[in-house]
Amino acid sequence: MKATVSRKAHFNAAHRLYRKDWSMAQNDLVFGKCNNPNYHGHNYDLTVSVTGEINKETGFVVDVKTLSDLIKEHIENAFDHKNLNLDVSDFEDLNPTAENIAVVIWNKLRPYIDSENDLEVVLYETPRNFITYKGN
Amino acid sequence: MKATVSRKAHFNAAHRLYRKDWSMAQNDLVFGKCNNPNYHGHNYDLTVSVTGEINKETGFVVDVKTLSDLIKEHIENAFDHKNLNLDVSDFEDLNPTAENIAVVIWNKLRPYIDSENDLEVVLYETPRNFITYKGN
Amino acid sequence: MKATVSRKAHFNAAHRLYRKDWSMAQNDLVFGKCNNPNYHGHNYDLTVSVTGEINKETGFVVDVKTLSDLIKEHIENAFDHKNLNLDVSDFEDLNPTAENIAVVIWNKLRPYIDSENDLEVVLYETPRNFITYKGN
Amino acid sequence: MKATVSRKAHFNAAHRLYRKDWSMAQNDLVFGKCNNPNYHGHNYDLTVSVTGEINKETGFVVDVKTLSDLIKEHIENAFDHKNLNLDVSDFEDLNPTAENIAVVIWNKLRPYIDSENDLEVVLYETPRNFITYKGN
Amino acid sequence: MKATVSRKAHFNAAHRLYRKDWSMAQNDLVFGKCNNPNYHGHNYDLTVSVTGEINKETGFVVDVKTLSDLIKEHIENAFDHKNLNLDVSDFEDLNPTAENIAVVIWNKLRPYIDSENDLEVVLYETPRNFITYKGN
Amino acid sequence: MKATVSRKAHFNAAHRLYRKDWSMAQNDLVFGKCNNPNYHGHNYDLTVSVTGEINKETGFVVDVKTLSDLIKEHIENAFDHKNLNLDVSDFEDLNPTAENIAVVIWNKLRPYIDSENDLEVVLYETPRNFITYKGN
Repeated sequence: MKATVSRKAHFNAAHRLYRKDWSMAQNDLVFGKCNNPNYHGHNYDLTVSVTGEINKETGFVVDVKTLSDLIKEHIENAFDHKNLNLDVSDFEDLNPTAENIAVVIWNKLRPYIDSENDLEVVLYETPRNFITYKGN
Repeated sequence: MKATVSRKAHFNAAHRLYRKDWSMAQNDLVFGKCNNPNYHGHNYDLTVSVTGEINKETGFVVDVKTLSDLIKEHIENAFDHKNLNLDVSDFEDLNPTAENIAVVIWNKLRPYIDSENDLEVVLYETPRNFITYKGN
Repeated sequence: MKATVSRKAHFNAAHRLYRKDWSMAQNDLVFGKCNNPNYHGHNYDLTVSVTGEINKETGFVVDVKTLSDLIKEHIENAFDHKNLNLDVSDFEDLNPTAENIAVVIWNKLRPYIDSENDLEVVLYETPRNFITYKGN
Repeated sequence: MKATVSRKAHFNAAHRLYRKDWSMAQNDLVFGKCNNPNYHGHNYDLTVSVTGEINKETGFVVDVKTLSDLIKEHIENAFDHKNLNLDVSDFEDLNPTAENIAVVIWNKLRPYIDSENDLEVVLYETPRNFITYKGN
Repeated sequence: MKATVSRKAHFNAAHRLYRKDWSMAQNDLVFGKCNNPNYHGHNYDLTVSVTGEINKETGFVVDVKTLSDLIKEHIENAFDHKNLNLDVSDFEDLNPTAENIAVVIWNKLRPYIDSENDLEVVLYETPRNFITYKGN
Repeated sequence: MKATVSRKAHFNAAHRLYRKDWSMAQNDLVFGKCNNPNYHGHNYDLTVSVTGEINKETGFVVDVKTLSDLIKEHIENAFDHKNLNLDVSDFEDLNPTAENIAVVIWNKLRPYIDSENDLEVVLYETPRNFITYKGN
């Protein structure tokens, strides 16, 4: 029997949508006010979901405490109260759109999730905009 | 790499569940208090989701501003502060159940979404009842 | 020791902002799209709060079950799935603005609340607009 | 045309994560503070979703009132204000993890859902932890 | 200039509404299903608010980190994953109604709040029922 | 008859807690990770409330459309997608703590609110931390 365990987490950060290899005009055209050179920021709400067999011994797919600790160690500690463009090396050459942040989070967590289980990341950039990424 | 971009929107409207070709007794039997001849109404919460490849140039599946504008033009402007039965031609011969409203919204948006991308609509009629429609 | 007990409730209804004694032009000027002659509607979220002494025997200010039943009998049964302008006599000569609906709800509940206790009503017309009324 | 109808419900209950056939030490090791012998508890939020063809006559996949009554009769009446370990026979020999509670809920509802329709259960144990179960 | 700083927190616990000095019949009459001898439980959501002068040096009324740590130490550690009736001495002779839990929380926190500042506690027992206590 | 009209709004921004006239060590000691020199950010949720007499002609305390436009013009346009420290002159010499941002918002709106009405601002910096300011 397969089920999905989901855990919500939270971090807040500054960012700017911007490509170094584009002119300021092109960045403005595509990214608008999200290209403020002084940055803006968000409270990012994150839901991480793991799908797999329910262990008959424990009744868990995965211990939610273990999952929560993984998110804290690999995502919240890395991103919270940071400037994504300047402080997080993953975005040194990657535009921190919500899509790309979701992919980076998925890639950071995937090695720690049992290889037989599936992983999904949902990232809210604002209460009205969110991204879902399942790894392919 | 595929991801899903979701955008929330909102409209409020009056409606009545009712078929012209049924007797009042049959309408009452099937639709109960939702068949009030004087109408009742809802704050409809809408989530529109587009799934597709992340564009490597922009880091977007779709610009959420573009998606938000589409919803505003084709759904909010058409439905907000309206009587769905009387003011919206799509429901002239279609009972405005939440299921049918979701289908109408999907059909209105589909032509404006890149044909390679998938579209999903979630429509909350009340905070406790909602419909999901994916186009098939 | 005084405390406040609050209970949330819900009803949905159609309405129109409109004064019979005004011209259509004046109604449009003041009430805009809320003056749609075919009505529109809302999911109204209601919070009713009673402030008073904590009864030392029961540990209750008021039994929340009793409060919930009062709201169901006097408000939800009277307003839910109704057209406020046409189906609810309180609004026969009263424009059903959120302010006036909150006052009507307060007046309907006040006789059933212990005279030594205070009553407050919060009425959400949409998730972003709400009214607070305390009876004076 | 297929759509999904979802209905939210709620119950609150006490429970303890614990296997009778394990030592107290092993229960503590695996279940930590969730193994408090005096029990702890939760407000469980439940979303039940049914996917199937939209009936062309009614415009419903399933009448949400019928779905709501099924949840009330088979889940809320059975679980609300109960101790899951002591008062609910389904958990006499089954550890009431959120995963297992979701499976039990799915199994209780499945016989009442049209066999051509799909059933999904989402169970929030806390606002930050939830389980999704689709029956396989 | 005075402002109010509010911090939300969370704990879950089992409880039973019950007075040892009443008969089971009287407990049932007054507390109904909340008097289940095997206990039931809740996710309690707590908001703690401190009102006082904004410190001109720091721009804080109170450092929200300090407030958060106080709630963690004195409330969450004492109540989370506990049986309020059996595990928390404050309720040894006090019926753990939401009103009484709010008063106990206020009394536990008051000594750690600057005497010139006001303290308010809001305690959600369920998403629809909550208590406000200001200390008098 | 007095009532309160409340309107919710939203902006997102980068900021840093920091006093120019303090050493970096003292800023770190008091403001911790909120003193990241590269900034971090938030989705700020704002509720603006106006209390006054209900106008007998219109049934409004204040037209919520007017209130919403005031917030858009004076707050959202000024703060959204900005760096509060660098882009907003109000914070040129004022540390942008949530308390101080709430005071600035109140001061910006007060001139546009009828002098007989009261104004209150609630500012959520994160979903768990918020400030209330009433102008004194």
